[in-house]
Amino acid sequence: MTCARDEGSLDHETEDAQVWASWGVDYLKYDNCFNQGRFGTPLITFQRFEAMWKAINATGRPMLYSLCNWGEDSTHAWANGISNSWRMSGDIYDYFTRPDDLCSCENAQDPMCIAPGKHCSVLNIINKLAPYADRTKPGSWADLDMLEVGNGGMTDDEYVAHFSLWAALNSPLLMGNDLRTLTASALSILNNPAVIAISQDPLAKSAIRIKRDVNVKKDEYGVGEAQIWSGKLFGGDQVVIFLNAADEDLEMKASLEEIFIRETGKAPQAQEDWEVHDLWANRMSDAVAQKIIDSPEQYATILSGIDWYNSTVIPYKEGIEKGDKRLLGKRIETLKARTMFVKTVKRHSAQMYRLRSSDRGAKKENLPSDDNHDEL
Amino acid sequence: MTCARDEGSLDHETEDAQVWASWGVDYLKYDNCFNQGRFGTPLITFQRFEAMWKAINATGRPMLYSLCNWGEDSTHAWANGISNSWRMSGDIYDYFTRPDDLCSCENAQDPMCIAPGKHCSVLNIINKLAPYADRTKPGSWADLDMLEVGNGGMTDDEYVAHFSLWAALNSPLLMGNDLRTLTASALSILNNPAVIAISQDPLAKSAIRIKRDVNVKKDEYGVGEAQIWSGKLFGGDQVVIFLNAADEDLEMKASLEEIFIRETGKAPQAQEDWEVHDLWANRMSDAVAQKIIDSPEQYATILSGIDWYNSTVIPYKEGIEKGDKRLLGKRIETLKARTMFVKTVKRHSAQMYRLRSSDRGAKKENLPSDDNHDEL
Amino acid sequence: MTCARDEGSLDHETEDAQVWASWGVDYLKYDNCFNQGRFGTPLITFQRFEAMWKAINATGRPMLYSLCNWGEDSTHAWANGISNSWRMSGDIYDYFTRPDDLCSCENAQDPMCIAPGKHCSVLNIINKLAPYADRTKPGSWADLDMLEVGNGGMTDDEYVAHFSLWAALNSPLLMGNDLRTLTASALSILNNPAVIAISQDPLAKSAIRIKRDVNVKKDEYGVGEAQIWSGKLFGGDQVVIFLNAADEDLEMKASLEEIFIRETGKAPQAQEDWEVHDLWANRMSDAVAQKIIDSPEQYATILSGIDWYNSTVIPYKEGIEKGDKRLLGKRIETLKARTMFVKTVKRHSAQMYRLRSSDRGAKKENLPSDDNHDEL
Amino acid sequence: MTCARDEGSLDHETEDAQVWASWGVDYLKYDNCFNQGRFGTPLITFQRFEAMWKAINATGRPMLYSLCNWGEDSTHAWANGISNSWRMSGDIYDYFTRPDDLCSCENAQDPMCIAPGKHCSVLNIINKLAPYADRTKPGSWADLDMLEVGNGGMTDDEYVAHFSLWAALNSPLLMGNDLRTLTASALSILNNPAVIAISQDPLAKSAIRIKRDVNVKKDEYGVGEAQIWSGKLFGGDQVVIFLNAADEDLEMKASLEEIFIRETGKAPQAQEDWEVHDLWANRMSDAVAQKIIDSPEQYATILSGIDWYNSTVIPYKEGIEKGDKRLLGKRIETLKARTMFVKTVKRHSAQMYRLRSSDRGAKKENLPSDDNHDEL
Repeated sequence: MTCARDEGSLDHETEDAQVWASWGVDYLKYDNCFNQGRFGTPLITFQRFEAMWKAINATGRPMLYSLCNWGEDSTHAWANGISNSWRMSGDIYDYFTRPDDLCSCENAQDPMCIAPGKHCSVLNIINKLAPYADRTKPGSWADLDMLEVGNGGMTDDEYVAHFSLWAALNSPLLMGNDLRTLTASALSILNNPAVIAISQDPLAKSAIRIKRDVNVKKDEYGVGEAQIWSGKLFGGDQVVIFLNAADEDLEMKASLEEIFIRETGKAPQAQEDWEVHDLWANRMSDAVAQKIIDSPEQYATILSGIDWYNSTVIPYKEGIEKGDKRLLGKRIETLKARTMFVKTVKRHSAQMYRLRSSDRGAKKENLPSDDNHDEL
Repeated sequence: MTCARDEGSLDHETEDAQVWASWGVDYLKYDNCFNQGRFGTPLITFQRFEAMWKAINATGRPMLYSLCNWGEDSTHAWANGISNSWRMSGDIYDYFTRPDDLCSCENAQDPMCIAPGKHCSVLNIINKLAPYADRTKPGSWADLDMLEVGNGGMTDDEYVAHFSLWAALNSPLLMGNDLRTLTASALSILNNPAVIAISQDPLAKSAIRIKRDVNVKKDEYGVGEAQIWSGKLFGGDQVVIFLNAADEDLEMKASLEEIFIRETGKAPQAQEDWEVHDLWANRMSDAVAQKIIDSPEQYATILSGIDWYNSTVIPYKEGIEKGDKRLLGKRIETLKARTMFVKTVKRHSAQMYRLRSSDRGAKKENLPSDDNHDEL
Repeated sequence: MTCARDEGSLDHETEDAQVWASWGVDYLKYDNCFNQGRFGTPLITFQRFEAMWKAINATGRPMLYSLCNWGEDSTHAWANGISNSWRMSGDIYDYFTRPDDLCSCENAQDPMCIAPGKHCSVLNIINKLAPYADRTKPGSWADLDMLEVGNGGMTDDEYVAHFSLWAALNSPLLMGNDLRTLTASALSILNNPAVIAISQDPLAKSAIRIKRDVNVKKDEYGVGEAQIWSGKLFGGDQVVIFLNAADEDLEMKASLEEIFIRETGKAPQAQEDWEVHDLWANRMSDAVAQKIIDSPEQYATILSGIDWYNSTVIPYKEGIEKGDKRLLGKRIETLKARTMFVKTVKRHSAQMYRLRSSDRGAKKENLPSDDNHDEL
Repeated sequence: MTCARDEGSLDHETEDAQVWASWGVDYLKYDNCFNQGRFGTPLITFQRFEAMWKAINATGRPMLYSLCNWGEDSTHAWANGISNSWRMSGDIYDYFTRPDDLCSCENAQDPMCIAPGKHCSVLNIINKLAPYADRTKPGSWADLDMLEVGNGGMTDDEYVAHFSLWAALNSPLLMGNDLRTLTASALSILNNPAVIAISQDPLAKSAIRIKRDVNVKKDEYGVGEAQIWSGKLFGGDQVVIFLNAADEDLEMKASLEEIFIRETGKAPQAQEDWEVHDLWANRMSDAVAQKIIDSPEQYATILSGIDWYNSTVIPYKEGIEKGDKRLLGKRIETLKARTMFVKTVKRHSAQMYRLRSSDRGAKKENLPSDDNHDEL
């Protein structure tokens, strides 16, 4: 049965996949309800979801296979061989930090969590992914669940932070709000091309967490922490996110050595100067966003009036290679070699930057990867 | 073998179920003793209990199938497809907070607990259920074990709290005391129609825990905490329980936003006024209860003399729809929109309220559910 | 292979059991080495050890089957159906409290411990057993590993505590020392009939831990705690052990309610007076013990000279029924109804008492058990 | 597929092993990527790696079988029956103490860790091994991952500590640096014969951790601790390592009783005097090392000029038996019976000593082992 108690697919994968193919289905989310006890070890769960993967492939029709087992049985360790995206948590809800008993894994970093439940906050989900952020892969992405942007339970700052992380962690960006009641502020988060370019980066590597500080002021739920995430981008660029989930404004900082952390030795990138681009500086104004909402049939005209980025015309890879300003955000400063990257970050917000080498023209486009191997 | 070492059912489910059906059995509790090592992963345990479920169904005779594996192997995740109730803990004993080594899961919230044992307190069991209180379902209830009300190990306040939670969490309400020595105070707990109506609510949704505070005074065992539970009821009503398991009286409070917590956005119910009904205010007096105990053959007469609720005559759904005062308890106040619900709660006791919208007449009876889907 | 790398039994149980039977073997310890990965879930481990149990039974020769898998895979939950004793820990070593990295389960109460190792202290093993002390059964005893009494690594007080617990927890009492170098003090611990009578009690119920206090002075290893254990004995008697594993002398106490803890209601035994018998008061003197060691061929004569208890002549059950003073220890006081049992206990030592009802003659010999059922 | 996504071996072990044998392969590292969910219990993982072990053996060609499953599923408990070395951790990286989210087992001692990841520090790996350091065996060694010595991320002191532990824990010593850019300091660590002799000791027993102190100054990552390791060597010698991973210099000490810890009784070795040999005192000078690097074709000449140890000419066993000074390091003091071994150890460094009995000539060469049995 499905989660809604309709007759579903377990042991009927082949016939169901064929029906869907005959309907022209493009996207299948295959959920975890009524699994008849077929979980508890990775192999059992793998086989259950592999059955559907084979059934879809056998149809010959390309469908995106969205695997959803809430991260049970170490999904990160096997799902990227048999799916296009894999949920790694219980269901998200529209809170930034509030813990809830139904999102039951107290230690959000525990990869053995059973019964992950629902009512999982943005922070809870991020913390769960951190230990295996490197397991997301081109064509098989970690799915952090649908976006809450625009649903009204969080502040605008919190939604910006939520969207920034979902982009940098390469999660599918599925709008979870009601489009008929979309607000201007939600639209201007969801359509930021400089941030979406991080999500769509050709190198396709998730950011990883390089710093975490739990010794900060806690909010009404007893939760508070600050994190810095850093990720490799195509062409030697780097994305850096300062996430302040503390109940106070914070000065946050990371050295270039930390930002370019390596398996072996010292980071040579720390010896260079870097141009810092603020990826939220050019966020669409509320006035423009509201105009689009009010006149959706005019949106192309409105956007063309403000030099908006159209990725159908210029693919992200091409835009990034060319240094398209709409994708780079706003250059705000130069970070000198061997220094600290320091920012004051407001309570419950995030800042997101693209670093680009100051002498980029003189270098090859791709620095060699420092990964010894890719782990499945 | 059974727990008492009589010959039992493992691998003999079919023949045993047929014998029971031939005897006219209505209720089967199927326990976990001498399971020959057939546990340790959900699938193994599922298959063992599924065998009996199929055997019962094959007899054609309806029996309530009470599955009892003490909550091992994530019972909450699979039992509601193959049972009518499922024990989720080791055996209860007649203490409110006392921890005991034999109830071995130190962290009562750990859903991977093996060897849950016996000597589990009321508080321990409640804490175990909290992470998956939403998994109880109509027709397959979480079983918190038999009631200790009236056995003498707890205070009257503690028994009231025990019964309140068992009702709001939709546990089977099996009297575990000796009826021949029933006391007046036990009877007046066990027969409170306003509380039983919560247990029998047509919407059949368990309350969930919305707040927990462990920074309160500890008792002689080092245990102390305070919790607030809230649950959706039929017709848009809400049940709220303030549970004080601290070793001191406490002022406890929750906002309407918290009481009506939602997956997305803000709770619209927080914008309304609510009538507060105390569900224990009309508890039967000791004098009447004692009269019933002393003259059981007269009980119908005695009860009719005090306008008692008879659910055989008026089903709970009908009574609630009509606003029967015997089910609503005593209206004590109006809770204004956007305010806090605040109560002073005595040490080791609980208060239990039904909230009903102040302008209920003007509204449809069922608010739409905010659940995205039902998880198995 | 065996632990010593000789060819062993895995998949050759039948032929090996037959060879042993042909040799007249009485006792088989079946260990856990070189198990080819056949562990990790209770069922896999159960099947491995069940194979040998069946093989032994098939020979027709009675052998004591001592199952040893170091407590992995929740041995307490299944071994008592297929063995006569079951090791529940890594290997003991000759220390009272010292933790060692090789005894790797940091939380000694964790029943899911994998790789329990060796170098487990007396205290570590006791703490592991506490959550399932009730699982030991007549004919299938929890095996806490061989006694270290007399090996020289602990003080005399520590060995007395070690032996007291092993007896009250119904562990097999296997001497682990070299008999050729037995000391007087070791002999007088190992031959105390009042303590052995607890081990051999006809009711065959393990003591359980009723109190644990970790807020006491720690020793050089950072370890320190105090525990009180209480167990039902044949004929309504009770054994109580005060175990002081703190780095200081302590006053320890338990109420009669706590000593006679029950599943339901209040303990009726707390309403009685009890005679307290010190089980170590009549320990054999060093002079007598040394005489036996020096003239082993004379031991019967020496013991008969001091009225020693010979259980071959008078079985323990008969001796206890008759109130044989050699089994009761020394009566030291009367504990009045509803009072506390209080003792000052030296650092790293234990005191062990048999409580016998003051008006025993007037009562039936066996109080009804308050257990609802036996869990496998 | 392999970790690099080339077609690999799962279910094709036999044909691949035969190809490798035909190529003359001597060393196979068999990794854990793309395992199709075949992990999660020891038996599943055992069978996957046993298949390759059988395939290699069937070829008839001796190959070193380096099993790499990152320590999942309790590798230490079963791998030494089917491999020559077994990785027991996620991938090492070039840091001494820095924790990283990708090395996800927060409690490094947890033997049930799933998803061990990469970016594991030297200290993290040592802490993981400590609970089962005794499981490494001649012919099947625990593999702590490749050496980072010379890669530049740690100080010279830290590399010395890293190499000392890898040698004393009998890990394979695989150089992980680029030989073309080898520095003098790296070479003089990697070629210290007195330390390599510990790695190659004929008794082949890993050192075990006898002390751990976490109450020391923490570094910028919040990490800091001090440890003492001790191991039996051939001929009654003992190796002792003082590892200071605190953020301060420390005085560290262990008694002879602790250094010679035993299963039963007191250590007789504590009653003797011991000669202390510093194994790093005779480390090659930078000048000599640089000369070798600069003129590799002259290295034999250069080394012969300084009386360097050549184990091809004199095997380690022979050298140790003869008391070759190049293997013993520098004798610095006599440790008197029943005293403490005390050293001041610099922040983030280690000291490593061989203890040899002062009256060695008068004794048999091998003290009897105090192990009761070898656990698989």
